Amino acid sequence: MRPSISQCFALLVVVLLLPLASADEPRSTAAVMEALQESDWREPDPANLLFMTLASGTVIMELTPAFAPNSIANIKTLIDAAYFDGLAIIRSQDNYVIQWADPDAQEENAKSLGSAKETVPAEFERSMDGIDIVSIDSRDAYADIVGFANGFPAASDGQNVWLAHCYGMVGVSRDNGAETGNGTSLYVITGHAPRHLDRNVTLIGRVISGIELLSVLPRGTGTLGFYESADEATPIMSIRLGSELDEAERARIEIMRTDTAAFADYVMSRTYRHEEWFVEPTGRIELCNINPPVRIIH
Amino acid sequence: MRPSISQCFALLVVVLLLPLASADEPRSTAAVMEALQESDWREPDPANLLFMTLASGTVIMELTPAFAPNSIANIKTLIDAAYFDGLAIIRSQDNYVIQWADPDAQEENAKSLGSAKETVPAEFERSMDGIDIVSIDSRDAYADIVGFANGFPAASDGQNVWLAHCYGMVGVSRDNGAETGNGTSLYVITGHAPRHLDRNVTLIGRVISGIELLSVLPRGTGTLGFYESADEATPIMSIRLGSELDEAERARIEIMRTDTAAFADYVMSRTYRHEEWFVEPTGRIELCNINPPVRIIH
Repeated sequence: MRPSISQCFALLVVVLLLPLASADEPRSTAAVMEALQESDWREPDPANLLFMTLASGTVIMELTPAFAPNSIANIKTLIDAAYFDGLAIIRSQDNYVIQWADPDAQEENAKSLGSAKETVPAEFERSMDGIDIVSIDSRDAYADIVGFANGFPAASDGQNVWLAHCYGMVGVSRDNGAETGNGTSLYVITGHAPRHLDRNVTLIGRVISGIELLSVLPRGTGTLGFYESADEATPIMSIRLGSELDEAERARIEIMRTDTAAFADYVMSRTYRHEEWFVEPTGRIELCNINPPVRIIH
Repeated sequence: MRPSISQCFALLVVVLLLPLASADEPRSTAAVMEALQESDWREPDPANLLFMTLASGTVIMELTPAFAPNSIANIKTLIDAAYFDGLAIIRSQDNYVIQWADPDAQEENAKSLGSAKETVPAEFERSMDGIDIVSIDSRDAYADIVGFANGFPAASDGQNVWLAHCYGMVGVSRDNGAETGNGTSLYVITGHAPRHLDRNVTLIGRVISGIELLSVLPRGTGTLGFYESADEATPIMSIRLGSELDEAERARIEIMRTDTAAFADYVMSRTYRHEEWFVEPTGRIELCNINPPVRIIH
């Protein structure tokens, strides 16, 4: 028996829909991760990796000079002069930040900045020329466009682009003036993303390993979580750039690229939660709930 | 000299604009807080306060039976039987949750549930009948309407309302089945709001004091931040309801009401940041960045 026209048409529709159905098939994050290729990972430039050694272990941060060239250059000058070695984490404010600095910065025995600059211009946002933001489909409370730029969470108004204060982001502490930060005192976000700080502070990068050494530090009981006595502070043994370290002595770090089809799949797997545990798959995502995976080969 | 028509018009415009200018006048959070009246605060029902005693201090949570009547009734039955006394915090996952439970729940020596129920129906969302959500002006990634209901962060689709997984929210741990939680194991959010959990778990309340005792707990190195050995766990000395405690022996707690003009002012002061430090006042706000102030009189 020959098929009717409508049967033919139905078959055609099924055949045409097949690729779509396959693309829409629920994929768990585990399935997406398993399918990753080597080319879906990037190895950050060691000159942009910052290794902070504490008694409890090592915190590794990635810097992104495309967003804060002057601040980062100044910080590298400070690192070259071992400025941070022997300073301390002087603040831990619950659901907000930890911060380090020279505890004697305001005293006569303040550590010398050497050849580093006393003040650095604010680098709160930059033009979109020469930088791509891979936007995600999210209704964001703080910006019209959000996504990832150079692998970092970023936001944009269509003209300028800026880094977003997600968990683990590293920024330059400052006083009231916009130009008062110079990189001698840095902070790390250890709570719910305080996105109202976006475009109010210079962000320089993100913690990619060891954040749990910072986020568990006892909260300071002084104003804004500052410690009230010097012995509550956590000493910083050293801060070094990855490029200063022997390749053999540092971990090999890879971060998932954010400009690939695989990353888009990853974001979808975080948007539609198909793990068995989920009753309601959500279908929504917020920028700071996407954390590009990091793998570290020791 | 008589004023010209255009001068008259200019004066009229200025006079008409005056009230607007006054209403729009920048107010800092400090100024809003200073102007609060006694009626802007509420004293939570002691029967809905949960006092958890750890070696490091006391964590106080407020329960909201309007959202999870059955789960909370079961938890109160467990508290009456001192079920939680001697259990432990067995999980601390960075940027996510801490969780407590009977470490031997799966063993032969599991603590008896007494007259508490083995399973409790899921209470993931409820009808809007009989509950008001005071919405805030925010573009939320996860829900069409967000605001506060009964003083707690909540979201809605216009038909149902549910509690939102903001920092400090307390929920009922469960296995894969929606009905598998019974309140014997509870969790507290200690990281960036995992709002994809909304409508996937029963939330019962929020930590209103002492969250910093939970958020600093060393992260577990097992899967999902579970501790790998019993001696890493933090013992829970006791959990009691406020109504069980002598009024003299417990702190007097007050929380800012969320259904007042003063709270609307407070939200505006968090939306437009007029503190001297801010360069860009933002003009935007996200639900979980609004934390109703708590005052505790010891």
